[in-house]
Amino acid sequence: MEQSFLAYLRGRTRSLPQVEVGIGDDAAVLSIGDTSLRQVACTDQIIDGVDFLSETQSLADIGYKSIAINLSDIAAMGATPTAAMVTLALPKDNATEIAGEVYEGILEACAKYQVAIAGGDLSTHDGVLSISVTLLGTVTDPWLRSTAIEGDAVFVSGSLGGSIAGRHLRPEPRIELANQLRQLAQVHAAIDVSDGFSLDLDRMLAASRVGIELDIDAIPISDAAQELAQTSGRSPLEHAWSDGEDFEIIFTVSEEDAKKLTDAQLETQITRVGTVVGRTGLWKRTTGSKFERVFPQGYIHEATATASES
Amino acid sequence: MEQSFLAYLRGRTRSLPQVEVGIGDDAAVLSIGDTSLRQVACTDQIIDGVDFLSETQSLADIGYKSIAINLSDIAAMGATPTAAMVTLALPKDNATEIAGEVYEGILEACAKYQVAIAGGDLSTHDGVLSISVTLLGTVTDPWLRSTAIEGDAVFVSGSLGGSIAGRHLRPEPRIELANQLRQLAQVHAAIDVSDGFSLDLDRMLAASRVGIELDIDAIPISDAAQELAQTSGRSPLEHAWSDGEDFEIIFTVSEEDAKKLTDAQLETQITRVGTVVGRTGLWKRTTGSKFERVFPQGYIHEATATASES
Repeated sequence: MEQSFLAYLRGRTRSLPQVEVGIGDDAAVLSIGDTSLRQVACTDQIIDGVDFLSETQSLADIGYKSIAINLSDIAAMGATPTAAMVTLALPKDNATEIAGEVYEGILEACAKYQVAIAGGDLSTHDGVLSISVTLLGTVTDPWLRSTAIEGDAVFVSGSLGGSIAGRHLRPEPRIELANQLRQLAQVHAAIDVSDGFSLDLDRMLAASRVGIELDIDAIPISDAAQELAQTSGRSPLEHAWSDGEDFEIIFTVSEEDAKKLTDAQLETQITRVGTVVGRTGLWKRTTGSKFERVFPQGYIHEATATASES
Repeated sequence: MEQSFLAYLRGRTRSLPQVEVGIGDDAAVLSIGDTSLRQVACTDQIIDGVDFLSETQSLADIGYKSIAINLSDIAAMGATPTAAMVTLALPKDNATEIAGEVYEGILEACAKYQVAIAGGDLSTHDGVLSISVTLLGTVTDPWLRSTAIEGDAVFVSGSLGGSIAGRHLRPEPRIELANQLRQLAQVHAAIDVSDGFSLDLDRMLAASRVGIELDIDAIPISDAAQELAQTSGRSPLEHAWSDGEDFEIIFTVSEEDAKKLTDAQLETQITRVGTVVGRTGLWKRTTGSKFERVFPQGYIHEATATASES
């Protein structure tokens, strides 16, 4: 459903001058009067049985995650988070207890990343727990998906794959890294890795109408991916290539800025994985100067379509 | 659950400098850098079986209402709406069809009030339809609930009661009236009428730590309230006093501004219903200069607690 419905929605959504970037990036960008500052807003909803399992996961972790996944979108815009609007639909049985436990995690994430809870809504109903968070932030020069330039160096933060082994419960959104990058370099394009490295990389490149020559051997593989590969029947690289919920960021900068970043002391490791090229698609170096096309893989939401594609 | 939980939440929510007004007004107010402009944000969630009945109501009406009720909160802050983040949880069966019908109403409301749909989230699940909207706006001097002043004239827009007879399906948020009032007068305090005139009036006065001497005979009673009273066993005034979902605004201004407004041509009728006094509570004039205390009535959400109390 999602692709055709999003196409319909984009076609029907009016362009109003206050919205500089609407549906289709990690977050929306709104202009604010005559100032150079912009408001950034993103929304993610998670539902019991679809996006998490309350029977096996701690409610505090689920609450933490509901904030963290939105912070990852804010980081990928190069923005600073300010406030969250938190909406819970609670099962009628034990509603207060559930709300309290979920909020423990929400408050922990908000305290850690200096986010205020500015409002929201609480309802009880006959259904399961769902959490919808709208996170607001500010930015002067937002990082879009669509503005990677031929010749750019492509980096990814942290290491990839295997988050299902535990890291996905307490994602570490790259807010502080984004803050450092903003000061050191001019980021041309960025996206967060939520559905899989290769899939989100491909989305960013497609939005920019460019491709990449990948240095496959450079892709940073997490310890968890190495470990998982021992029993999963898939290689560590396959996990890094396609596992979801890494919540790292992929970004592009000029060659000049790439050198600056490689020399800098950053809060989180970053790794150069390739160079933006004019021909679209993902291209892997084989022998010498030959390249072979490779294809993205990842978690395509079957049950979920995110209007902001976050 | 709601009151104790909101108290807990307020106690646990950190005060951060970017949030000027948090949980407890119609909308949150966020400062934006050094500008005098502020961001306003409110959230309302509506769920099938709790807040509407999809079996008897049109999905387009429900979608329209999900935007309009948030617009009413924005109007009560004296703000101008800019963009909406729209999140739908859809039943698995006919998800695309349902989303399409709901969006017809959402798009209609957004077009009418110049609101952009900037993003959101769509999920399908085993449960019923729920719609969560976060609406953003801007304002220079927000109208709060807590700043009514002794001696203020108290006005209400439109007419009250009986919205259940049909008006509640297509509420008319007082965005344009708020815009006119902003230009003509300095509004001291305001609230929107969502749970009943007397209840929301009482909330505004309690937040301001003042009371009102009411001119009960002046309360504008809607035609629908008159009609309903013929069969409901309640008087037209009782309907106007306590019926929910009027989506009018109550506001206070100085005596001087009250004269200006009475003489002005406004887009929507406004009616003076009393004067703010120092002693708390609602006071009804009986004979001569004697006053008798009257008590608020309305729709107290049993199943729903709104963190923003909107």
